[in-house]
Amino acid sequence: MPASTLEFIPKDRIQLAQDIENYFDKLWPLNRSLMGTDYRRSLDILNEVMPTNNLEFRTGEKVLDWTVPNEWNARDAYIIAPNGKKIANFKDNNLHLVGYSIPFRGKLALAELKEHLYTLPSQPDAIPYITSYYKERWGFCISQREYDGLEEGEYDVVVDTSLEPGKLVVGEARIKGQTNREILVSSYLCHPSLANNELSGPLVLSFLYKELKKLEGQLQYTYRFVVIPETIGAVAYLSKRGFELKDKLVAGYQITCIGDAGEFTYKHSRQHDSLADRAALQFMSEKKQSQVIPFNPAIGSDERQWCSPGFNLPVGSLMRTMYTVYPEYHTSLDNKSIMSFTGMADAVGAYLEIFRNIECNITYLSTEPYGEPQLGPRGLFSSVSDKNREEDELAMWWLLNYADGKHDLLAIAKLSGHSMDSLVRVGRRIKESGLFVEV
Amino acid sequence: MPASTLEFIPKDRIQLAQDIENYFDKLWPLNRSLMGTDYRRSLDILNEVMPTNNLEFRTGEKVLDWTVPNEWNARDAYIIAPNGKKIANFKDNNLHLVGYSIPFRGKLALAELKEHLYTLPSQPDAIPYITSYYKERWGFCISQREYDGLEEGEYDVVVDTSLEPGKLVVGEARIKGQTNREILVSSYLCHPSLANNELSGPLVLSFLYKELKKLEGQLQYTYRFVVIPETIGAVAYLSKRGFELKDKLVAGYQITCIGDAGEFTYKHSRQHDSLADRAALQFMSEKKQSQVIPFNPAIGSDERQWCSPGFNLPVGSLMRTMYTVYPEYHTSLDNKSIMSFTGMADAVGAYLEIFRNIECNITYLSTEPYGEPQLGPRGLFSSVSDKNREEDELAMWWLLNYADGKHDLLAIAKLSGHSMDSLVRVGRRIKESGLFVEV
Amino acid sequence: MPASTLEFIPKDRIQLAQDIENYFDKLWPLNRSLMGTDYRRSLDILNEVMPTNNLEFRTGEKVLDWTVPNEWNARDAYIIAPNGKKIANFKDNNLHLVGYSIPFRGKLALAELKEHLYTLPSQPDAIPYITSYYKERWGFCISQREYDGLEEGEYDVVVDTSLEPGKLVVGEARIKGQTNREILVSSYLCHPSLANNELSGPLVLSFLYKELKKLEGQLQYTYRFVVIPETIGAVAYLSKRGFELKDKLVAGYQITCIGDAGEFTYKHSRQHDSLADRAALQFMSEKKQSQVIPFNPAIGSDERQWCSPGFNLPVGSLMRTMYTVYPEYHTSLDNKSIMSFTGMADAVGAYLEIFRNIECNITYLSTEPYGEPQLGPRGLFSSVSDKNREEDELAMWWLLNYADGKHDLLAIAKLSGHSMDSLVRVGRRIKESGLFVEV
Repeated sequence: MPASTLEFIPKDRIQLAQDIENYFDKLWPLNRSLMGTDYRRSLDILNEVMPTNNLEFRTGEKVLDWTVPNEWNARDAYIIAPNGKKIANFKDNNLHLVGYSIPFRGKLALAELKEHLYTLPSQPDAIPYITSYYKERWGFCISQREYDGLEEGEYDVVVDTSLEPGKLVVGEARIKGQTNREILVSSYLCHPSLANNELSGPLVLSFLYKELKKLEGQLQYTYRFVVIPETIGAVAYLSKRGFELKDKLVAGYQITCIGDAGEFTYKHSRQHDSLADRAALQFMSEKKQSQVIPFNPAIGSDERQWCSPGFNLPVGSLMRTMYTVYPEYHTSLDNKSIMSFTGMADAVGAYLEIFRNIECNITYLSTEPYGEPQLGPRGLFSSVSDKNREEDELAMWWLLNYADGKHDLLAIAKLSGHSMDSLVRVGRRIKESGLFVEV
Repeated sequence: MPASTLEFIPKDRIQLAQDIENYFDKLWPLNRSLMGTDYRRSLDILNEVMPTNNLEFRTGEKVLDWTVPNEWNARDAYIIAPNGKKIANFKDNNLHLVGYSIPFRGKLALAELKEHLYTLPSQPDAIPYITSYYKERWGFCISQREYDGLEEGEYDVVVDTSLEPGKLVVGEARIKGQTNREILVSSYLCHPSLANNELSGPLVLSFLYKELKKLEGQLQYTYRFVVIPETIGAVAYLSKRGFELKDKLVAGYQITCIGDAGEFTYKHSRQHDSLADRAALQFMSEKKQSQVIPFNPAIGSDERQWCSPGFNLPVGSLMRTMYTVYPEYHTSLDNKSIMSFTGMADAVGAYLEIFRNIECNITYLSTEPYGEPQLGPRGLFSSVSDKNREEDELAMWWLLNYADGKHDLLAIAKLSGHSMDSLVRVGRRIKESGLFVEV
Repeated sequence: MPASTLEFIPKDRIQLAQDIENYFDKLWPLNRSLMGTDYRRSLDILNEVMPTNNLEFRTGEKVLDWTVPNEWNARDAYIIAPNGKKIANFKDNNLHLVGYSIPFRGKLALAELKEHLYTLPSQPDAIPYITSYYKERWGFCISQREYDGLEEGEYDVVVDTSLEPGKLVVGEARIKGQTNREILVSSYLCHPSLANNELSGPLVLSFLYKELKKLEGQLQYTYRFVVIPETIGAVAYLSKRGFELKDKLVAGYQITCIGDAGEFTYKHSRQHDSLADRAALQFMSEKKQSQVIPFNPAIGSDERQWCSPGFNLPVGSLMRTMYTVYPEYHTSLDNKSIMSFTGMADAVGAYLEIFRNIECNITYLSTEPYGEPQLGPRGLFSSVSDKNREEDELAMWWLLNYADGKHDLLAIAKLSGHSMDSLVRVGRRIKESGLFVEV
């Protein structure tokens, strides 16, 4: 375990924010989807920050209840309007093309074309984000405003895509701890140009890896970081690693929607009171963050897979402004303009603090449980009692009283209101004095 | 089980309200008491709606800790004032005569008479409702205003009643379900001309029977409806059926004070978290009704007997404006003018919805608990994902995640906030797809 | 058990308040500390109210993790300022001298002297209360205002004290009950002239003893009263009696800060839901007192020792305005001017009521648990039912329903909102009728 809990705080927040922004800019233009060239390119770019070993699943391979689909690649897609103007141009914004659109070339009357157009009437300037992974179709997404201005006449449609057998890639990285008890960190990499609901997740995850890696050799738990296409990637990964995770995992977190400067939101794991939950709730409490929501399998990210009833892994999710809460979600408005890179740097710090809460969550047993032990002779307590006692001295009494082998530090933190930082520091001092043994 | 949960909704609310009103008018004038001609006449009238098999207990019969009393019949009762005016005339309002008054004829001075008069000083225009079942006496109830106007002089009193051995009658009706697990529905029929605190109960009960009877053959549970004189009737019934009920009952409801258009009130069973409670609380939650009170053995109706500690049956009580809350309670002001017949029709519907919650409260086990199952190929989910997902699609995810053989639909409804209607409908669709088995 | 719960109320509140004040005045001037002449004199004075058997521990004796220190006696202590004025005079106020100051005589420059002076800058007129039990030093406490006026020059310091082997004395008194199940009552006697945070505790304890003693022979539980120097005294006592207490104790209370007329505060025992807690919370609820705080081992009195994890005794603390809450705490402002002697008399009554809650906390089992028993023939219930029912009649129904051998009276009081007084009275009447047996 690190010598001080301070080591879980990133050294240079501004530099970290800048690094994250650089990678955001590199990753932004790529047309990520479940599988395809740009997914792999994105993973290659992330590998500069977090080198991964990759697991591959081939098209047609059965993974749990699912089958790995074809790989999709889009070269070009647009519509020539009757007035000759090129609209819905994929090269302007990859959201214009419905994800996994099948190839198509042809001329259509406006009425026919409209069956392939998707808009968001409530946000007339936004391009919606639409995919059709498992039903063959093609389509374009445009703003309601553009849609309303479409004239009658013949439209020339080009969808230059391919759907072919290929491979689904899972990026996996590990930081080995002193035990084989594991902590899972997961995010997805399958949305095209979306910011909070795409890049914030893998970026925070990768830089979290990089920061935590500095503590390798001092960590008690083994950390497993995975980057996958959402849903099908988690399903595929679970088909290989599910029972192993069920056996080894003590906590896990799905990272998503963590790119802005909003308050933190914590979503419980299905187990509701797992170590993952307790460590995150302690962070939330210390930072006076109050948005805590129960587990919800109906909306969310891959915690839906990790927490499926057969596996029921202890995986929660610390987010900032979450899916469905912000109006830009799943539209072209979810872009760099709503991101905060210092916010993401601080999110890396937040997860490190949560890991700290787990790494340092010792259960002590007092060697002098009968009456309070004498602290003065052990150098644990100033011998002059007056009206001003320090935080640590108060924390010491809580530790001494609850060092009964049944209360871990997270439990004592919750009972006492003292910070994990103080409890860890004081707990170590007491242990050094010989008054505590670890259980 | 019915093909749709809609079948638990009465077909014609206005007609139902009219039918209830007709029977209200027929029953109103009768001088019901624990036992006697008018009690039996009332039960005969109800039999037009709900045919009962009757259990009889003879005067003097020992029932649990009690003894069946004499039967009471009142032919006439009045007082001739010194001015020759007939007052406190039983034929004008049967509340004027204290229930179970012994026969008496005689002339009394005002001071002597006053020892037999009961009033309600706080409600000077109301005639109070008073009985004296177990102590022999006679008495009259009059308004405080009339009392205050009584002049000195000789009063001629006639109490033409009889107290003779007879029989206590319990009306019992059953609707047979596919199992012998039972649901009890109970009300009383022993008050004279009182509306909310008398007729609302047996009327809602009888028409509830009539509506539920239409679903006979499709029901999983066996329903037992009982109409009795309050307390002594429940005690007598328990003396015969108590241990059988203890064995078979999964839920029960005492129907009382359900005649107006007020908000619903639910009183917990003594078990506090019984199936009866959970099904009723789900109804309350869906209808945004917030008046939920704990079990209370000190005031109430026959739930006090059903929930006596030896039997401790899972019997709650869904009411509208309940005893002690409305000022007309136990006075002549509790009459038709404060009733709502559409309110009673809706109360029938409310109990049907609660029964629906019990009948449809399945526990499912998923056949694909590892990761989310693929819904598209099973026709369970639209293949285009966009911002607008329907209620049922959200409910589906909750069902799939909690189909672990441990959470029944009522538990999932509470966790998810989804309606039983939606959960039942979607649960069936999933089961048809082969993804669920019933536990 | 006493024939009526009224016997737990002190007969003459005003006389009791006067008696307490007399003893307050006798005890006030003495320079109490952990051990020494004035500690023993104080205990002797209390013995006029509560005769104790004393346990003695000699200096150097090992008690649990501690060693009994030297006895400290102070004859005189003062400083002669350069202007010849005597300041910080121990004979004016014994708080001027730091407790356990070692002897010293000498002349110091102002700067040197200041290293031995203690003030409270936030309360410039108050003399702080400081001790140094376990580190050898000497010092004086003065007001900030006096400190600020000190002139340069030579100061003549006299600390005429002695630290010599002696004995630590625990005063112990017992009232024998019919069983060896015990209730502990504890307070401390080791602070010099402090009022709320010193004398209120042993005074309320002693007069509580005196009042309770009147009920000797009728009590079910054995009461053990202990007066000790704080911390070291509790540790010493536990070294002798700890395991015996662990075996016998059903409840206990640490009495401190109970001298003013403020609202009551109850601090939970570490067990949180012990009989001590339940009995005190019932008192708090009946008196509409809402200041209830959880167990806290970091601040407080000897509950920290009683509730140390090895013993974990069920000891709570009923206080009035508690330590750290009132600004006069641990200063010369904590004196008679903030005391209320009727407040202390009422505190004696409060503890008696809590003992009543424990003494009378019977668990009944009904002999007629099937349906409600008939009360009329047993003389338990008026045979006329009307709108006005008395408190006791309502309490009766709660008792009858929850007399299941599992709910004690405190549990029924909590469920029903009825007072223990009513439940005890009615419970006895029901038991006399033969309907209840005690479990």
